[in-house]
Amino acid sequence: MYTTEEISRFQSRIAPYVHQTPVMQSRTFNRDTGATVFFKCENFQRMGAFKMRGASNAILELDEKKRANGVITHSSGNFAQAVALSASDYNIPSFIVMPENAPEVKVNAVRGYGGTIYFSGNRAIDREEKVNEIIGSIGATFIHPSNDLAVIQGNSTATTELLEEIKGIDCVVCPVGGGGLLAGTILSAKAFSDTIEVFGAEPSQADDAWRSLRSGKIETNYEANTIADGLRTMLGDVNFPIILGGVKDIVLVSEDEILSALKWVWERMKIIIEPSSAVAVAGVIKHKEYFRNKRVGVILSGGNADIPMLVPKMYKK
Amino acid sequence: MYTTEEISRFQSRIAPYVHQTPVMQSRTFNRDTGATVFFKCENFQRMGAFKMRGASNAILELDEKKRANGVITHSSGNFAQAVALSASDYNIPSFIVMPENAPEVKVNAVRGYGGTIYFSGNRAIDREEKVNEIIGSIGATFIHPSNDLAVIQGNSTATTELLEEIKGIDCVVCPVGGGGLLAGTILSAKAFSDTIEVFGAEPSQADDAWRSLRSGKIETNYEANTIADGLRTMLGDVNFPIILGGVKDIVLVSEDEILSALKWVWERMKIIIEPSSAVAVAGVIKHKEYFRNKRVGVILSGGNADIPMLVPKMYKK
Repeated sequence: MYTTEEISRFQSRIAPYVHQTPVMQSRTFNRDTGATVFFKCENFQRMGAFKMRGASNAILELDEKKRANGVITHSSGNFAQAVALSASDYNIPSFIVMPENAPEVKVNAVRGYGGTIYFSGNRAIDREEKVNEIIGSIGATFIHPSNDLAVIQGNSTATTELLEEIKGIDCVVCPVGGGGLLAGTILSAKAFSDTIEVFGAEPSQADDAWRSLRSGKIETNYEANTIADGLRTMLGDVNFPIILGGVKDIVLVSEDEILSALKWVWERMKIIIEPSSAVAVAGVIKHKEYFRNKRVGVILSGGNADIPMLVPKMYKK
Repeated sequence: MYTTEEISRFQSRIAPYVHQTPVMQSRTFNRDTGATVFFKCENFQRMGAFKMRGASNAILELDEKKRANGVITHSSGNFAQAVALSASDYNIPSFIVMPENAPEVKVNAVRGYGGTIYFSGNRAIDREEKVNEIIGSIGATFIHPSNDLAVIQGNSTATTELLEEIKGIDCVVCPVGGGGLLAGTILSAKAFSDTIEVFGAEPSQADDAWRSLRSGKIETNYEANTIADGLRTMLGDVNFPIILGGVKDIVLVSEDEILSALKWVWERMKIIIEPSSAVAVAGVIKHKEYFRNKRVGVILSGGNADIPMLVPKMYKK
């Protein structure tokens, strides 16, 4: 575990490349949950998600020679944009492997940030083969979206900012997909205080982390048929030990609960969050027993929502 | 015109009853417009709009005896909610005249804040008759949503907060409907500096203020067929002289430009604003000649958007 000084150093190191995002509150949410909740708004982060923190820190971690050869990742989501934008901050090339079926809007976003895109087949094995092929020919350094210690350290900075700004936090809740945000949240929280409890929130439809925590080994998802598209991935061998050692519990929420929390935040807080973030909000609403009378930090992980796809689902009843 | 001390007093007086709303920026918006824009986020205000400021100040302005008899207004929109919520802050009754065709969600919101609702016919004359009838029987004090000096003074506080927080503002842009926000913005800006330029932004489909400014007398709207439902109203004899004396210009925007600005703010800034606010954003995008190389304050007036109604229009192309 890190000291407070050590964990704060990650934050000060990437500070020039990321936004210090605001913390919001809602009286109505507090009244309804009986908790005092501080929402850390990573939906306002550069490129729209906390992933910017991990990508930025991972590139800073490389020596000059490695950096010059550029970085490579595979992602069809926020991490693709984060690596492309971070690489452009440091004036180095980035190579992003995306599945052929990636949405055009995400492909364009990566291109807009200056990333070079390589398309692969849609299976995990396809993208890994493509990554290895490119590393072989170009020599770029691979950065995994969630199972990389430098990425996890970068992710920790969201919680570090929150805990430096808001005193007396009792627990922090964040969504868990690949596990990189939850592991980073744990590293930061434990550096500040042994007594801060960290919770992961996960869709019941992609409950691999919940099952992994109970079995003590990394479990896989079967269908991962959840609206929270950022949370369909599984844990890795770098982040799982940190999670296993530091998480208080993982709370599960249904698809209806995710959509209902999403709608509530958009309508009442007037901010756009993506479904993955709504998973953490829904977790606090559903599992009041953990949070009542507590000061609770909730990491709103991102705001890259597909608005026209989501709205009919949010208002279908 | 007020001194800086006088205008600041309105702000400090209502401060316990309103949120000091955050100011946001967007690098992309600045790059695209060539301006440095500071968005004053009244969409995060209590009940979701700047109207809370005017309502709160107008009630504070009443002596104790008048207050005890309660307040009355006519509105099917944000001012109805603002008066009901403000009145509940002061523990006095509020009476809200709403048209029979008011959306159920707005009726419920007013009830939720403790307002007593009276329904009237849908024409202006109907609601005025109903207001007079209630005043006759109850003795409550009427507060006009926009054509009331205390309301205008209350509205001024959004700009006062902005100018106290952000130094060196060259101009301020706000939407203009009934004229209460624009008049308040002028009162505040001129109290801070003779040289700050104030602009109103208005839908071409409801261009009464644009025409009034040019003719020198209050003009009426013909159809007011605009998505910006908060801006369909006309100016009044209290706010128009202030506007005529202090506004630099009124800029017009089309319905497509409003929807495009709305979509841009939701998608890129990750905040929900209502169409009336998007009118001001669209005004800055369209009329770059006024704002290039300037430090521009934009009042995002509110966030009470009808999401499922708007989204199909925003994404129709």
